[in-house]
Amino acid sequence: MPNITRREEIDFLLYDLLGADKLLARPRYAEHDPETIGAMLDAALKLAEDKFQPHAAAVDADEPHFDGTRVHMHPQVRQALDAYRAAGYPTVGFSEDLGGMQLPMTATSALKMIFSAANVSTTGYTFLTAAAAGMLAAHGSEDLKARYLDKLITAEWFGTMCLSEPQAGSSLADIATRAVPQPDGSYRLTGRKMWISGGEHDLTPNIIHFVLAKIPGGPAGVKGISLFCVPKVLPDGTRNEVQLMGLNHKMGYRGTTNCALSFGDADGAVGWLVGPEHQGLACMFHMMNAARIGVGAGAAALGYTGYLHAVEYARGRPQGRALAGRDPSSPMIAIIEHPDVKRQLLRAKAYAEGGLALCLMASRLMDDIETGDEAEARTAADLLDVLTPIVKSWPSDWCLEANDIAIQIHGGYGYTRDYPVERLYRDNRLNPIHEGTKGVQGLDLLGRKVSQNGGAGFRALMDAIGDSAAAASPDPALAGLAQELIVARDRAAGVTAALLGRAGAVGPDAFLANASVYLDMLGHLTVAWIWLRQGMAAQAGLAAGASGARAAHLKGKVAACRFFFAQDLPGIHPQCDLLERMDRSAIDTEAAWF
Amino acid sequence: MPNITRREEIDFLLYDLLGADKLLARPRYAEHDPETIGAMLDAALKLAEDKFQPHAAAVDADEPHFDGTRVHMHPQVRQALDAYRAAGYPTVGFSEDLGGMQLPMTATSALKMIFSAANVSTTGYTFLTAAAAGMLAAHGSEDLKARYLDKLITAEWFGTMCLSEPQAGSSLADIATRAVPQPDGSYRLTGRKMWISGGEHDLTPNIIHFVLAKIPGGPAGVKGISLFCVPKVLPDGTRNEVQLMGLNHKMGYRGTTNCALSFGDADGAVGWLVGPEHQGLACMFHMMNAARIGVGAGAAALGYTGYLHAVEYARGRPQGRALAGRDPSSPMIAIIEHPDVKRQLLRAKAYAEGGLALCLMASRLMDDIETGDEAEARTAADLLDVLTPIVKSWPSDWCLEANDIAIQIHGGYGYTRDYPVERLYRDNRLNPIHEGTKGVQGLDLLGRKVSQNGGAGFRALMDAIGDSAAAASPDPALAGLAQELIVARDRAAGVTAALLGRAGAVGPDAFLANASVYLDMLGHLTVAWIWLRQGMAAQAGLAAGASGARAAHLKGKVAACRFFFAQDLPGIHPQCDLLERMDRSAIDTEAAWF
Repeated sequence: MPNITRREEIDFLLYDLLGADKLLARPRYAEHDPETIGAMLDAALKLAEDKFQPHAAAVDADEPHFDGTRVHMHPQVRQALDAYRAAGYPTVGFSEDLGGMQLPMTATSALKMIFSAANVSTTGYTFLTAAAAGMLAAHGSEDLKARYLDKLITAEWFGTMCLSEPQAGSSLADIATRAVPQPDGSYRLTGRKMWISGGEHDLTPNIIHFVLAKIPGGPAGVKGISLFCVPKVLPDGTRNEVQLMGLNHKMGYRGTTNCALSFGDADGAVGWLVGPEHQGLACMFHMMNAARIGVGAGAAALGYTGYLHAVEYARGRPQGRALAGRDPSSPMIAIIEHPDVKRQLLRAKAYAEGGLALCLMASRLMDDIETGDEAEARTAADLLDVLTPIVKSWPSDWCLEANDIAIQIHGGYGYTRDYPVERLYRDNRLNPIHEGTKGVQGLDLLGRKVSQNGGAGFRALMDAIGDSAAAASPDPALAGLAQELIVARDRAAGVTAALLGRAGAVGPDAFLANASVYLDMLGHLTVAWIWLRQGMAAQAGLAAGASGARAAHLKGKVAACRFFFAQDLPGIHPQCDLLERMDRSAIDTEAAWF
Repeated sequence: MPNITRREEIDFLLYDLLGADKLLARPRYAEHDPETIGAMLDAALKLAEDKFQPHAAAVDADEPHFDGTRVHMHPQVRQALDAYRAAGYPTVGFSEDLGGMQLPMTATSALKMIFSAANVSTTGYTFLTAAAAGMLAAHGSEDLKARYLDKLITAEWFGTMCLSEPQAGSSLADIATRAVPQPDGSYRLTGRKMWISGGEHDLTPNIIHFVLAKIPGGPAGVKGISLFCVPKVLPDGTRNEVQLMGLNHKMGYRGTTNCALSFGDADGAVGWLVGPEHQGLACMFHMMNAARIGVGAGAAALGYTGYLHAVEYARGRPQGRALAGRDPSSPMIAIIEHPDVKRQLLRAKAYAEGGLALCLMASRLMDDIETGDEAEARTAADLLDVLTPIVKSWPSDWCLEANDIAIQIHGGYGYTRDYPVERLYRDNRLNPIHEGTKGVQGLDLLGRKVSQNGGAGFRALMDAIGDSAAAASPDPALAGLAQELIVARDRAAGVTAALLGRAGAVGPDAFLANASVYLDMLGHLTVAWIWLRQGMAAQAGLAAGASGARAAHLKGKVAACRFFFAQDLPGIHPQCDLLERMDRSAIDTEAAWF
């Protein structure tokens, strides 16, 4: 069953691809080296195998339920989280001055992906908590930090983010929760929140909610949103006015409670402002951007474990014979030898490993922002800005596709709950929805990110792609791919310039009509770039004399790189065509015609 | 909740697109006219709403279970099927001499799609039974027909098809079930069968299994397979040796029991030969081909109901504001007005209605085979041959995508079990797997169907596409699309000729390496053709002065046609590129590299 991840894959991504050894040489990470990180990865994998993966199917079948008073949850969820806390994993990414282990984000993400792959819904509680702690550290008052930061960093208490409301899903301008200032400097909050992951449970003695609300008299729309810290249990030990209205019963991801919450049914829930008044959205985006990258990483981890299950099944399942010479008296072959199964596996590999690499590269950019020199940090920040919607969305779409392929490779067995692959699909299906749907990410990318900061992020991406293509060109095995990448990049750059150039003339509807096609297109280009880099890293390893299992792994990387260029990347050209002509076939369709 | 189907859509497909009025003028259908068929469609829709749709969620949550002795099933499954039987629906497609209503297949399929959309798993029992009855009528001995045919046609007893075995899913050459001839002309069967839908239940007093098995001493492989009729209850009222080993617990489609069966645990299960010895596969393919077209129709029906739910949700859900002038004090707009939501809905519409039209056209071809003149019948048979893998696979992939889009349009709500769309997705996810996986369909299409009968089917398809394009060209609104269709068709024809021309030289692995890409490509071309025909039919209706709701419906057809050509069809060109160069990136990858 395990198939959670492979150490050689993580090592390849960390060291061959992302040069984490050079990262670890920076002063901030002096306490760590590849050996200690390797030991942590092994320990994480063991804990994930022992405590997280075993109850993943059970909590899916026996999801948390609310009896009107309290939430009942499969007991192994708590046991796993207690063990995770006891081993110190919640603190890995925080700086030492906050009591953390100060690991690079690149290694932190690799560790967390292990737990996501093993059991994404049990793990979910801690990820939200870490994102909440990061935001509180950045924006909270000294008082609030003194009261809550350490508890959140150690995950003694869990945190949530409360944005959506039943009447205003993605439209934060329309939230109706109100926060009325009190003489003692606190606020009283009244309103209802929806889709709150981890909004109620008894896994920790307190839950710290971070809540968007409006202070009466402030500006309309998003400019009047403030952020509040609202604990379930107040400092004096009494229950705050935060009530669970009901649990949502989901397709997957069932171990993470997802809640409708009511704040302030009597006098108002007590909360404290985080950051300045009316600046709540900017503060929340600190948490939201980290969460979006986390969504991508979770999606990639789920896609990768699905792929590994499919590889194991395809190696072990004999069926049929080679197409040439189908002598029925000859023994059957393993299905991995059938060309169509091989093609499906290679697609899944290209998506899953492409997604892993994309998300770890995003973490590497976060490390460069934190510890790179000034130029590195600025480029990394620009790049991460433009890449965030892609990092959130591409794995949510394509690593989900890897999960779909894993079902298909298992045939009828994949459609049953005796094998994990259908559950992995259902778990991963949340990822294109939460933390901003794919539609929202497309608007963010084309409507904001590519032109933001004078287009610096987009230019940085185009330059980085050009640099990699130039570096790959001397290798005859990769020169053709490098050339295709440049053609695709130039096409994307041309389309982007054309769209931006005409945006004002055609108006926002026509400009953004195919924003999600743009997101698909730029996502595939970005992943092709990352695959070329993986191909280069693999070729370097082979040239350095890799043998045995490592050589097979590296050859697989080159094969998946070639496959992605041959069978997936060319799909962006018809996308560029329709973007360039600003295809109006959707927006010219009237609502009454559906 | 209903949103099962729309009468105006069925009428458009039957009459505007497929000319069912002309079909009904043929002598065989003298008992029917558009009015009587309309009344039957209305009655079916009412029964589906009253008896099938209401328990679809309940049977999903409370699936059949086996206590070791008997199968327990949600009681409304039986109630729905009793009502379906009482109203005579099982007999609609059978000829009058067999006690049927002798409806054209085109109308029969339209009726059945209503029940599939309402509750595919309860409906499943009767579809298998009808396919079994059709096969028995064609291949059974007079004795067997006298004993079982009427019971199957009226669905008093249900039927199954038992092909797969645990060790040999798609590889029928390797089935191990044995059938030993007895002096009385019967056989005794011993073996295990897997994935048997409807293999056990107590919905009918008997279950008639049609079982593939090998007679000892026959040829090896598929040439030694015979077909047997094996009732659960023998003519003398005793239980035959057919034992339920266990139920499979599935991702969806849960109301249809899916069984591991054991035949002949003591003396062998009693069975009778159907058709000649060793010709079982040919007989079974009579049932299998009907089942494959039925799979496509079910997938299309599920995609379409998902689309209708999404349209209703998108019309009723206010959220956000128009991109131009986002004044937060203005009222919110319905999400159907957002360009990205509109685009998603139009994609879902193009796939779902494209799938419906494809499947009903396949039924129309069956009617032409039955009642057309000699030339019509021959062309229809050739076309249906080449189209069967597409009719099975294209809706299984793309109408499933429509279900995925329906989830996405519902946002977080779509991911919960409070709305039907996630269940519709899970139900539909079976369709790319059963009755021959997508991989099997790709091999069937490229490896057999396009060259079969001297390539007559493929030529018929190319000619039919050309005829439609020529017919569309005089309309300025469609002339450009007709031209694009011809370009795409010529490309597909060129690729096909190139592949077939090199097949011998490169060997079967390289020839068939990308067979599922070929299936995707030819499927999209076929559906583009059908969309152009829908566009022509809609333009004709508009030119004839349609107004009001009918005009809106017809304009929606033209819009979806334009969208499919603008945003989907161009994707076949990179597919043609990789097919033409016989891309080897998958087959050159060694199994050890995964």
